[in-house]
Amino acid sequence: MATVCISGTLADKLHACAEAGFDGVEIFEPDLLAAPESPEEIAALADRLGLSLDLYQPMRDVEGVDEQAFAAVLRRAEAKFQLMNRLGINLVLCCSNVATATIDDDAVSADQLRRLGDLAEGYGIRIAYEALAWGRFVDDYRRAWRIVELADHPAVGVCLDSFHILSRGHDPAGIAGIPGEKIFFVQLADAPRLSMDVLSWSRHHRLFPGEGDFDLADFTARIVDAGYTGPWSLEVFNDTFRQTDARRTARHARRSLRWLEDAVSRVLPASPDGFEMLPDSAAPSGVDFVEVKAEDTSAIEELLGQLGFTSRGRHRTKPVTLWTAGAARVILNEQHARGWEPRLAAIGLEVDDAEAVDLRMGELRVSRAYRRTYATEERLDGAVAPDGTEVYWAQAADEGDPAWVGEFEHGEAVRATPITHVDHVSLTQPWDAVEEATLFYTAGFALRIDSSTDVPGPRGLVASRVLVAPGGGVRLPLNVAPPILAAERAGVALPQHVAFACNDVRAVARAAREHGFAPLAMPGNYYDDIAARFDLTRAEVDELRELHLGYDRDAAGEYLHFYTRTVGEVFFEFVERVDAYAGYGAGTAPVRLTAQGRR
Amino acid sequence: MATVCISGTLADKLHACAEAGFDGVEIFEPDLLAAPESPEEIAALADRLGLSLDLYQPMRDVEGVDEQAFAAVLRRAEAKFQLMNRLGINLVLCCSNVATATIDDDAVSADQLRRLGDLAEGYGIRIAYEALAWGRFVDDYRRAWRIVELADHPAVGVCLDSFHILSRGHDPAGIAGIPGEKIFFVQLADAPRLSMDVLSWSRHHRLFPGEGDFDLADFTARIVDAGYTGPWSLEVFNDTFRQTDARRTARHARRSLRWLEDAVSRVLPASPDGFEMLPDSAAPSGVDFVEVKAEDTSAIEELLGQLGFTSRGRHRTKPVTLWTAGAARVILNEQHARGWEPRLAAIGLEVDDAEAVDLRMGELRVSRAYRRTYATEERLDGAVAPDGTEVYWAQAADEGDPAWVGEFEHGEAVRATPITHVDHVSLTQPWDAVEEATLFYTAGFALRIDSSTDVPGPRGLVASRVLVAPGGGVRLPLNVAPPILAAERAGVALPQHVAFACNDVRAVARAAREHGFAPLAMPGNYYDDIAARFDLTRAEVDELRELHLGYDRDAAGEYLHFYTRTVGEVFFEFVERVDAYAGYGAGTAPVRLTAQGRR
Repeated sequence: MATVCISGTLADKLHACAEAGFDGVEIFEPDLLAAPESPEEIAALADRLGLSLDLYQPMRDVEGVDEQAFAAVLRRAEAKFQLMNRLGINLVLCCSNVATATIDDDAVSADQLRRLGDLAEGYGIRIAYEALAWGRFVDDYRRAWRIVELADHPAVGVCLDSFHILSRGHDPAGIAGIPGEKIFFVQLADAPRLSMDVLSWSRHHRLFPGEGDFDLADFTARIVDAGYTGPWSLEVFNDTFRQTDARRTARHARRSLRWLEDAVSRVLPASPDGFEMLPDSAAPSGVDFVEVKAEDTSAIEELLGQLGFTSRGRHRTKPVTLWTAGAARVILNEQHARGWEPRLAAIGLEVDDAEAVDLRMGELRVSRAYRRTYATEERLDGAVAPDGTEVYWAQAADEGDPAWVGEFEHGEAVRATPITHVDHVSLTQPWDAVEEATLFYTAGFALRIDSSTDVPGPRGLVASRVLVAPGGGVRLPLNVAPPILAAERAGVALPQHVAFACNDVRAVARAAREHGFAPLAMPGNYYDDIAARFDLTRAEVDELRELHLGYDRDAAGEYLHFYTRTVGEVFFEFVERVDAYAGYGAGTAPVRLTAQGRR
Repeated sequence: MATVCISGTLADKLHACAEAGFDGVEIFEPDLLAAPESPEEIAALADRLGLSLDLYQPMRDVEGVDEQAFAAVLRRAEAKFQLMNRLGINLVLCCSNVATATIDDDAVSADQLRRLGDLAEGYGIRIAYEALAWGRFVDDYRRAWRIVELADHPAVGVCLDSFHILSRGHDPAGIAGIPGEKIFFVQLADAPRLSMDVLSWSRHHRLFPGEGDFDLADFTARIVDAGYTGPWSLEVFNDTFRQTDARRTARHARRSLRWLEDAVSRVLPASPDGFEMLPDSAAPSGVDFVEVKAEDTSAIEELLGQLGFTSRGRHRTKPVTLWTAGAARVILNEQHARGWEPRLAAIGLEVDDAEAVDLRMGELRVSRAYRRTYATEERLDGAVAPDGTEVYWAQAADEGDPAWVGEFEHGEAVRATPITHVDHVSLTQPWDAVEEATLFYTAGFALRIDSSTDVPGPRGLVASRVLVAPGGGVRLPLNVAPPILAAERAGVALPQHVAFACNDVRAVARAAREHGFAPLAMPGNYYDDIAARFDLTRAEVDELRELHLGYDRDAAGEYLHFYTRTVGEVFFEFVERVDAYAGYGAGTAPVRLTAQGRR
């Protein structure tokens, strides 16, 4: 990993990388300059931590200059080579010239790289030349390789950086033309597709592999094919990761490389040396349960009762109750929740091979969730997601209730209900955890990013990103509260919610009302707008208005839904998808946020 | 002001706009939809608050469609016209078609606008047609005007939005060709020059006039020239203003319009009706004083004493002391500071016409700072900057100390020193106050944005924007701490500092050391890098290293400087500018941030 990826001092960064399981690091020069330790101390620390120092970077503006400027380059380079000897690093990154290039001529650049190579060789050092996406004359890896080929020097090779190549849309097929031994180094970064200048994009918005829009598995596989056998390093300039806890970010980064190792193994006909697949596991097929935790869960019980859930009784060994409606199961947990207002503490996912997910999570080094279980109780494996939510997985039941439901005693007779299952669970993410959460769910559970949107609320924009399991059995909108609310607990700033799918949401709403339920009140102006936008009859609009139902439509179908009030940090939604409606009522969400702001 | 500019519910927004002194608002449709109040209630509230409702917006995708789609447009429009009648609004914004346009033909669009105009006329409503910068076929105001001209309907005119025109680089000269009475509405927004897609730029990064890179004075003057006499409205989509306190943002927005009114008056040969210049006032010529406030200022006194400042004694009526070195004056204030660690509480600026600044600040409706003064004491006028710093202004003294220095008693004899004056004052800004602060200093004191840069620190990037007075007598870097630190007090997250200019910074450092001063320690690696980068002699580098001096060079000169340790929330820097060096040692700042992180 490049030390620029994470926060802290250079020593902090080395500790964090070692603890996360990295084999080595690239030393980013500004990190060294600011460090109080001497180069020898840094080298000794890395050695003790078991980290190799694989690259010193960057050396800028070294070629394409006139002879007078090149003399200054050589003088500066020699000082850096001496420093690298003190650090024990034998590879340096030289970027294509951005600032001082005056000569647009491959032969001149090659000649200067060759002479730099001669100097480097005397210090036992090799040069990895990289085309920056915004290089003055050299901004394409294929041209960088042509120059290195022309230089024809054993100490001069190329560095390939996925960002510089894929951001420009340069075809990675050309990598096949570079002999593996002339690829001296590889830097990996993902990124979201953004239409902005490539320099700002690169400096602020890179992501770890698996979190953006680049096809890094293909990119990496091509380099394997070319015969490269050196380090695979992350170089991710990102405003968030620069400030978050270094140890946590390093673990997150290491996880992304493990994900990439798996993805590359699946692209190539045979796993290359040192690349291992993760244990196979299909995406989860559904939500097994959601758990709400609070010192006192009575207010939630009252709501669920009004909405037609059945109390399935109390757990035989814990202060935990179960409420179900169809295949929707809500656990209410009062254990170890002193002082807590209701919050969404855990979700359970149904998987086809719980053992494989368990092994997979182990390989990804996620933090494990712990549940005390007694003899005769079902074992439950889980992990702690980056936002603190516990995520459990269990073998899907063939039919009917899963076995663990039998651990609950003194329940009522199961009531019939139009409620069928959990449609989606909206998880509020701290702003600095959403990328990590994305990788957690995509790498761990094979969910995919389905859509991203900004929802305007009265206290700012809520950035929402929906993760779904192929097949649609699990849908997790991840919502990030506006920064002004950052000082609040995430669930207070922006409540979490569980949406239950219904066959007939109007019936659910009517029945609940008869049991004393009051939905979140939607304003009259909202219904006037629905009448103007959609060709609904007056009676249809009046019914929506009467039941406080939200309404949306897309090309594939319709969406009807209503919300409960918020209790603590959580609320519920009841939804009916007519035909193949694929969204989440984005048009209604701003109205809902305003209504919730009034409570 | 468009209600979309600020946070809160629609009712909150109306109150905020009225309190800030706006005459009217544009109702942004989503704000109305989410409001619990009926249209009649909103109209009555606006009336009570003295706000006119000048525009309903937006109506989207109304023209360039086939006849079937246009029938639906008319149906939707009629419902909205009925709503507008209930609101008492007689002007609606229609945006050029983005989503549904299939016909790229001015005649078709004109015909459809004409028919929409017929329908609107029946409700007493007029249509302002606007070219969005990302319209499917119509994305240029000149084409929108051609279509309106073709439509030739009394109820159909254009809306001109500075963002949509200036973001695309469209020449505003064409405005002269539009009769003033056909310009139905004008929306104003500034923006920084960003190279990103224009939709994201527009939706997230607009600014209030005077805060970005657009020439809004010129733009507005052209519309005045065209004979427009309608409202001047702000439409500023900005992620920050959407979440900050609505009343504060509205005052800030109103101030930007006052600034623009002044700027337009200066562009036009004669001030148009209703446009008034601000009182003339040149930019400040220097820093009169800086004030550090704390329950106990002893640690600061010790530092200043070591660094060669003279104690000028105690104020005759307050627990306040004065320390000076050349024209640099530091006030230490222990009044009303219980529990405070040292922080930069106030700065005083020397101006050529204190009375004019005072009137100007009144026109800009800034919050006033209050200082109790007694008979025979100098009066001091001041304002509270958005970050809470008190900023005072006083007539520059012709020569020697300003008169207020005479209020301090029992001082020592003035010591000679190479320190000459305050070079710059770095003010840490909360992330949500930096735009408001920029306008405060540019509109209030005629400072200008000189440069912007991101400084990498061990806890994230520090965004820095330097404001300078033409002439360079006042330089204020505004620094924004990385968001991870947002929960901390700004000055704790990122200390503020005062930099003092010296004729001979080496002499200051040596003399201070003899008096027991220890500078902030700079690491050895930093000096190895200086040796590699600059052609300094070994003796010169050794001297820098010995004195812990930072070093930088630009095309115009050199910069030598050292830092004190941080005391509370403040530290000091001593700088020597050789020749015309114009920067602030940006290369050294990351090293300094790391060294400060270690304290």
